[in-house]
This record gives sequence, C-alpha cells and structure tokens, in this order.
Amino acid sequence: MAKVIDFQTDPSRYRHWRVTYEGPVAYLTMDVDETGGLFDGYELKLNSYDLGVDIELNDVVERMRFEHPEVRVVVMQSGKDKVFCAGANIRMLGGAAHSHKVNFCKFTNETRNAYEAAEAESGQKYVAAVKGACAGGGYELALACNHIMLVDDATSSVSLPEVPLLAVLPGTGGLTRVTDKRKVRRDLADVFCATEEGVKGKRAVDWRLVDEVVPNSNFDAIVAERAAAFAAENPRDADGITLGSLDRTIAEDGSVAYSLVEVDLNRAGRSATITLKGPDGEAPADLAALVVQGDQSYMLRLAREFEDAILHLRLNEMECGLWTLRSQGDPEAVAAHEALLRENADHWLANEIRHYWKRVLKRLDVTSRSLVTLVEHGSCFAGMLAELIWAADRSYMMEDEFEGDNRPMATITLTPDNFGTYPMGNGLTRLQTRFLAEPEAVDALRDQIGEPLEAEEADDHGLVTMIMDDIDWEDEIRIILEERASFSPDAMTGMEANLRFAGPETMETRIFGRLTAWQNWIFNRPNAVGETGALQRYGSGIRGDYDMERV
Amino acid sequence: MAKVIDFQTDPSRYRHWRVTYEGPVAYLTMDVDETGGLFDGYELKLNSYDLGVDIELNDVVERMRFEHPEVRVVVMQSGKDKVFCAGANIRMLGGAAHSHKVNFCKFTNETRNAYEAAEAESGQKYVAAVKGACAGGGYELALACNHIMLVDDATSSVSLPEVPLLAVLPGTGGLTRVTDKRKVRRDLADVFCATEEGVKGKRAVDWRLVDEVVPNSNFDAIVAERAAAFAAENPRDADGITLGSLDRTIAEDGSVAYSLVEVDLNRAGRSATITLKGPDGEAPADLAALVVQGDQSYMLRLAREFEDAILHLRLNEMECGLWTLRSQGDPEAVAAHEALLRENADHWLANEIRHYWKRVLKRLDVTSRSLVTLVEHGSCFAGMLAELIWAADRSYMMEDEFEGDNRPMATITLTPDNFGTYPMGNGLTRLQTRFLAEPEAVDALRDQIGEPLEAEEADDHGLVTMIMDDIDWEDEIRIILEERASFSPDAMTGMEANLRFAGPETMETRIFGRLTAWQNWIFNRPNAVGETGALQRYGSGIRGDYDMERV
Repeated sequence: MAKVIDFQTDPSRYRHWRVTYEGPVAYLTMDVDETGGLFDGYELKLNSYDLGVDIELNDVVERMRFEHPEVRVVVMQSGKDKVFCAGANIRMLGGAAHSHKVNFCKFTNETRNAYEAAEAESGQKYVAAVKGACAGGGYELALACNHIMLVDDATSSVSLPEVPLLAVLPGTGGLTRVTDKRKVRRDLADVFCATEEGVKGKRAVDWRLVDEVVPNSNFDAIVAERAAAFAAENPRDADGITLGSLDRTIAEDGSVAYSLVEVDLNRAGRSATITLKGPDGEAPADLAALVVQGDQSYMLRLAREFEDAILHLRLNEMECGLWTLRSQGDPEAVAAHEALLRENADHWLANEIRHYWKRVLKRLDVTSRSLVTLVEHGSCFAGMLAELIWAADRSYMMEDEFEGDNRPMATITLTPDNFGTYPMGNGLTRLQTRFLAEPEAVDALRDQIGEPLEAEEADDHGLVTMIMDDIDWEDEIRIILEERASFSPDAMTGMEANLRFAGPETMETRIFGRLTAWQNWIFNRPNAVGETGALQRYGSGIRGDYDMERV
Repeated sequence: MAKVIDFQTDPSRYRHWRVTYEGPVAYLTMDVDETGGLFDGYELKLNSYDLGVDIELNDVVERMRFEHPEVRVVVMQSGKDKVFCAGANIRMLGGAAHSHKVNFCKFTNETRNAYEAAEAESGQKYVAAVKGACAGGGYELALACNHIMLVDDATSSVSLPEVPLLAVLPGTGGLTRVTDKRKVRRDLADVFCATEEGVKGKRAVDWRLVDEVVPNSNFDAIVAERAAAFAAENPRDADGITLGSLDRTIAEDGSVAYSLVEVDLNRAGRSATITLKGPDGEAPADLAALVVQGDQSYMLRLAREFEDAILHLRLNEMECGLWTLRSQGDPEAVAAHEALLRENADHWLANEIRHYWKRVLKRLDVTSRSLVTLVEHGSCFAGMLAELIWAADRSYMMEDEFEGDNRPMATITLTPDNFGTYPMGNGLTRLQTRFLAEPEAVDALRDQIGEPLEAEEADDHGLVTMIMDDIDWEDEIRIILEERASFSPDAMTGMEANLRFAGPETMETRIFGRLTAWQNWIFNRPNAVGETGALQRYGSGIRGDYDMERV
C-alpha cells in the first residue's frame, strides 16, 4: 500500500456515488463500482466500501454544504437491488495493515460525524432510505443519518453482524450510536449485536433501531413525502459557491506546498513542520465580496489546504510521528478575516466556513501524532490559528528579541471566536478544557481579546507551555523534538488519547476514545486478525478458531 | 501461573502492609517483602507491587470500613527509606500473560476506586504522605488518595515514567486522575508524563500534582497535624465488627460452595452458574441485633461471598466466558433484610453494607464475562438481587407454571433501593441506564415497588429481555447459552465494554473504558511486549526497539 492516497476528488471523478438535486432535496445514491477499489486484491461487492468510497462520500458531504446550500434534506439510498450497503469490505480489512485499518476507521468516523452534524449546523438533514440488507458499516451509515426509514419486506433488515461473524466490533460508531443516540435498551442492543441476520419490520421500530417502517409498495413516495416535509420545516434560499481543486505540489522528499500551507517533511527525523500563512490580502469588504472570492477567500482556502495536509500526512506518512505547527504572517489581518465571518455569522457562507474550521480543528484533535506548536517571531496566532496552540500537546513561544531576527515580536491574539466558535469533541472550547481547574481563568482571558500578548504575558496567562529566549530556543527545541520523536509511537497514541479530552465525554469522544480503543485492541488480537482468525477465514465457510481465554 | 489466586486474607497473613491505629487516625505503611511475590521469577524491590500486594491492600481497605469505623483518616506512607513506591513490578508485568496483566490492572483499579470513595461514602479520608520516589503505580496509589503531601527535598518526587521508560500507559487511573481529578493543565500533564524523573517541590504544587509540599525536618509532625485536623472535621464514635474468614470449599472440577453462594463450573462448556440464596433466617429485629450478627448477617455475608466468587472466577477460570446468574429463596425475606438497612441508613453498619453491595455490583458491571440472568421459579430477585437482572447483558424469565415444578412462581420485586442505592459507575442506577430513552418508565416503575411482578408484567415493564414458558425454556436457554459461549471472547469483551455504560461518563467509566482499552491495546503491541519491546528490555540498559509507524 505504498501509493499515495489522495483525499481530493470531485463529482466528475466519482465511481461510487451519484447525487441528483430536486430543489431542497438531494438524492444521494450509493452504487459502488465493484472494480473501483482503492487497492488491489478485493472487489467491492454488495455496496461494500473501502477508504476510496468514503473519500468520495466525504467530498459529497463537503460540497453539499458549500455548493448546495439550498439543499435541506439529503436522502441516502442504494443504487443496488436487495442491498442498501454491506459495510466495510471484509477482504480489504483482512488484507490491510493494522495502521491502515485504524486510519480507515478514523476517517469514516469523521465523515459520519460530519453529516450527522449537518442538520444542527446548517439545517441539512440526512435521511436513510433503507431497502434491502443494511449490515454492519452499512447500518452505521444509516445510524449517522438523523432519520432512518426501513422498507417493510421479508428481506430488508438492519444488522450489526460484526461480533458473531467477524469477531470485531462495529467500529464506525455503531455500538455507541445504538446505546447513546438511539438509546436502544442495552439487553436488546446485546441481542441485536449478537444476531447475524439482524432485525426487520415492526421490531426494528419497537427496538428503536429505525424511525419508521414503510410498505414496499409506496416506499419511494413516502420517502419523498417525508423529505419534502422535513425540507419545508427549514427552507433556505441561497446559491452556492464552487470548490475548485487545491493548488498543491508534492515533492520527492514528501514535502507538500499549497498556496497558504507548507509541509516540510523530515523522514529521517520522523517529523513534519506545517506552516500556515497569514492572509495574502485584506479581508473582503463585506459578505457579497466574500461570496465573490468563494473558495479563494483566505479563511476557506486555508482551512481546505490545512485539512488536506492533515489527511495526507496521517495516511501517507505514518512514520512521521511528530508534527510541528507554525504560522507566519500578520495576526491583525488573520483577525480581520475571521471577524468578517463572526460579524455575519448568520450568512450561510460565513456559517459554513466557521463550522468548517471547527471540523478541521477537531481532525487535528483526534490525529495520532504528537503535536507541538511553536509561536515564533513573525507568527500570526490570532483567533482560529491560536487554537493550534491549545490543540497541540505542547507549545513553546519565543521571548524577547532574537539576534538577527527582524520579524515582528511573537504574540498571541485572542478573538471572541476563541470562546465558543470552535468547540472540541467534548463540547468545551480548547481554553475551557485547558483551564478545567480554574474556569475563572477563561473569563479573565476575555479581557485580553484583541491584545497582542507577548511571551511573558502569554506565559502569565497560562497560554503556552514554556517561553524561551534566544539563548535557549534553538537547542532546547531541538532536544525536545528529538526526544519526543524517539518515544514508542503506541504509548504516545495511548497517552495523547487520554490527555487531550479532559472534562465531559460526548458521543463523539466516546467513539474516538472508548469504542476506537477497544476496536484497535481487537484489531491486534489473533482471534480477529490471526491466520485462523475470523477476518482471515471470512468467506471460507469455516469459522474463526478462537483462543477462548477471556481477557 | 496455574496456581489458584486467593483473594481472601487477613492481617495475620499480611507480608506487605501494616496498620497502626491512633484513635481516629490509622497509619497504613507499605513495606513490601521483596521475596513475597505471588509468583516466582521476580523480586518486589523498592516497594513495587504485584497482585498479591494489592490483595492485601484491598483487604485493608475493606476492614477499615467494617472493623474500624472510628477511623476518619488513613495516612498511606512507606516503610522504606528513599522510596514511597516504585509502582507495579516490571519484571512481573514483563513475564505475565496478557490476560493476567489486564486482570491485575482491573483489580488494582477497583481497589483505588474503593479507597478514593471511602471519604464520600463513610467519611474515611485517605492521605498520601510521600517521602522518596513516588513513581508510576506508586503515584497512582497517591492519586487515589484525596490529599497528597510531598516532602520537599532533593530526591522526593512524583512521576509517571511509564511512557518514556516502558512504552506503556500509567494504567491504574493515572492519566485520567491527572486530567480529571487533579485537573492538571493538559500541556503540563503531557510534559509530566513524558519526563522520567518526575516533578518535585513547589512545581509539583503549582502543576496541581500534589496538594502541599512540606519540609523534611518536620514532615511527620505536619502529617500528624493535618491528619488530626481532617479527623476533627468529621468525628465518629463507633465500634466495628469482625470480618471472619469465609465458609468456602473449592471442588476438583472448579465448582465453589459458600454458605449462600454456589458456583457450578462447566469447564467444557466454558460457563459457570452462580446461584445466590435467599436468607436462611428472618431479618434482625433492629440494628443492635444486626451488629450482633456482624459478618454473619445475611446482607453482608452474601455480598462477601458473591464478591469472592466474582474475583475467584475472573482470575482463576479465564476460559469460563459465560456466567449464568440465578437466585433461589424467598423474595419477601430478601426485601425485609434489605429494608432494615434502608430504614437505618444513617447507622454506620447499615451504611457500610449498602455501599458494599454497590461496590460488589460494580465489580460485576466491569467483569469481562458475558452475563445472563435467569429468573426461574423459586427465585428471589428482590431489591439488590434484582439488580443482577439489569447488570446482566441479558435476562430470561420463566412464564406460567412448569410441569412438575412446584416452586413459587418466578417474580421480580422492586424495592426503593433499586432507585438510587446501587448506582453504576456512570452515576445512574441500572434502571435509569436501561431506560435512557424513556426516563418516565423509571418513574412509572416506582408505583410497582413491593409488588411481586410475574413474567408478563415484568415483560410489559421492560424488566427482562424475554419471557418463556415451559415449552420453550429448556431448549431455548440451552441454545442461547451455547451460542454465546462460542463467540470470540475478545469481541465479547469489546462489545460489552461499549454496551454496558450508556449515558454519562465519569472518571470511573473513563478509567475502565478509555484508559483501560488503550492500555490493553498497548499491552498487545510489540513495542511494549515484544522480544525487543520496552517491558522485556527493562533493566538491560538497552532501550526498546520500536516500530516507528504511528497508528
């Protein structure tokens, strides 16, 4: 699996999904091309999916928000007879490296979370119209929709057969959404998750697994009716913008250059430096001007490039365990671009860009890489860029003048958006999470909004881990980064997954924390992945040969 | 490790701990016998511990509650020079099977939770008086105390060196208590957990790692002063009871008989049937009579025997993946014994027994075994015993008369104690967790308190998974149990860990869910446990050889 996985696509290249638009309703049809797998060695039968299928779905979900703001309801349906979706492709999983399985699940989870939240964030409600078998990851696709309609016939059912059939978990949020979103009674959930054939008809409603069952004879009509009714609750009249392809160059050594983001890769040192640039122009005069700039507007372009860099490095540079985050540019200009969105937050495009930044920052939070942010002279850590300081595991800031360095002094500028616009998965802001022990410290920071805080002040306010002057900076930072990059990657992953999300847990943190951790454990156990384990034996007619010791 | 691990002990047999009583203050001294390991192949140097050391600690903690209710403050300290506690023994961990490591961590976590909660439940506050190195599991011992005092000298420090030194996590609640109990700022937590040598002196207070630092010269005096002050806040005058040894017989085939609990083991079928018996006498007339009965009183005796059975089966019968829970006896009598405690809940002994039942039921909740409760004719599922129905993954109940069975009809009797006395780790009652989707169903159940509910009623109220009559019962139950026992144990563990704790997360659920799951994952990874992994290489002077791929 050495080829580069590209997270960028567009509708002209889709092989697995099609979308038709009928005013406020979009019909999103999954019709997976069996021969269109991202890798060799498996066929994507029965609408099963691999990462490539999910990359397209992620693209659909993003474009729906930016290119089709008029859409209020997205009906997810199958283009195949007799099957809605059979879930993740088992042969792909059986052949994939542990790291690919884990990253695959993380990305699919992020995509599920994105369309699940689209209703609350943008009034785009996803409805699953299920005909035929809806199994495993297929049911997880439906679970992330906010309304599930199941055809009432002899063969259509929802199921999570992973445990009995494959000895792994429904790892794309399935178990968590069953208990915490749909609030299925736990003993019924236990029966459901241990039953290969799943549940259909009225029982699926009674057990809260679907919202309604609908006779086959007029399924399409009732789905359309329901979609129209949901759409009418929440009309919106807006023209979208176009998301063009990114300006991106990947060099031989793995470094990546975008228009506003630079990734310097040091494979030998197992680290990457990601530099985000400040605006290359003034903030648009108003929202009309922002709409004209469209995907070239600073806030949106930077978010898209940064997101692509995150996804690219996660999947394509797995040994690169340490990311150093930098910025360079004018902090006032960053704040001005952000302010335009804040002051017009009820405009659909401003709203979308703000939520997009929230999602991108969340991707960073759940990235299994050690993150260190360097607040250097010439940097522009204001507003959403300042979030990088607290999203990181640690941050270091330059203090006082550095010899021969005539860039503006390093500062941090808080904006009102640091106090609620970009919450983490735990529902708190990064500042709230940081100051869990002293909530009053967050209140006090509001008084600093708009002030460029130099190192000593930032340190007094607890905004950075440590400040260092010219004498210490270079050597100390080098030692810190080298040490960090030398630790066991597994221990880092486990430590960071536990330290990053203090405070309340949500369905989201539970999916990435509890569910993912157990799944990863199982993905290491011979009962699932060994030569005689269930994933390898799948399709052979022979059940997995299990070590029956209970751990 | 085939020898039977016995969880029963008493002070006459302690090798690692001693307790001295000074009125309301108890001094609990850890002085581990290097040669007293539970297994061969390691020495318990530097106050490091293995499961045997923790079994004694658990015994201390339990006896403190029942035998020494006058104790208000327990000062935990070291009997060694220069070291408080070095944590779990690394050679023991390096040599232990995966299943032993996991069970060891679970039991130690339960012990930490028990003494951490003793202050809120019984007014017994644990204070850590730390002199010398307090590392890893040693600091985790201190973290579960509710006040940490650290001597201010050049060598005394607190540390969590697991990640840099051993490539595993501080798995006994360490990471979680740092972020969620002590609310250490996450970047400081990150630095702390990546620093082998730890933190000492004023910085340990500034970072919230300890509550106070105290000069070496008068450490003992200040500890005594602090203990006296805490004790004075919350005085109690009471004489304890004695916890005698359990009446227990373990048969050749692994079955275990207690006075009120029977464990039938079916090793070939990988299952155990645990039967809890109703009272063998009437409820005591009053609390004075209960005190006279002491450890022979029904509610306490049953809890102790059931707890021992749980711990015994967990560690000694690992292939026994399915537990069937039964009861036989008079449900009215069970309710009467429970009612005496409820009506006198402010009496110290009644309070202790009620909290004890809460802890025992929580042990069941976190037990990695599939749990099925059978509500048969002649059973006595009232009050705390009815909790077994909802603690189980599933429950089945006999409906109508069974041919040739003249036992009283199967019933379930709710008591007021089902509505708050035995909360789960998530802070909710089992009924609240069960009916997360319809909280009003829990309110409605209050009207049924005291009514013996037969199968149809119990089913209508959603109290059991399924009811079955004489025609179906035997075959159906057999098939269900056989199927369950045949699934991959790992998938069961992961599934149950996710389905059992819907609703809010707490520090406790996070320790057993998120932290434990990541630790178990790491315990399977070559970077930690492989031949060139950190645990195997520990002490060799050579660092672990890591696969640097980041997952």
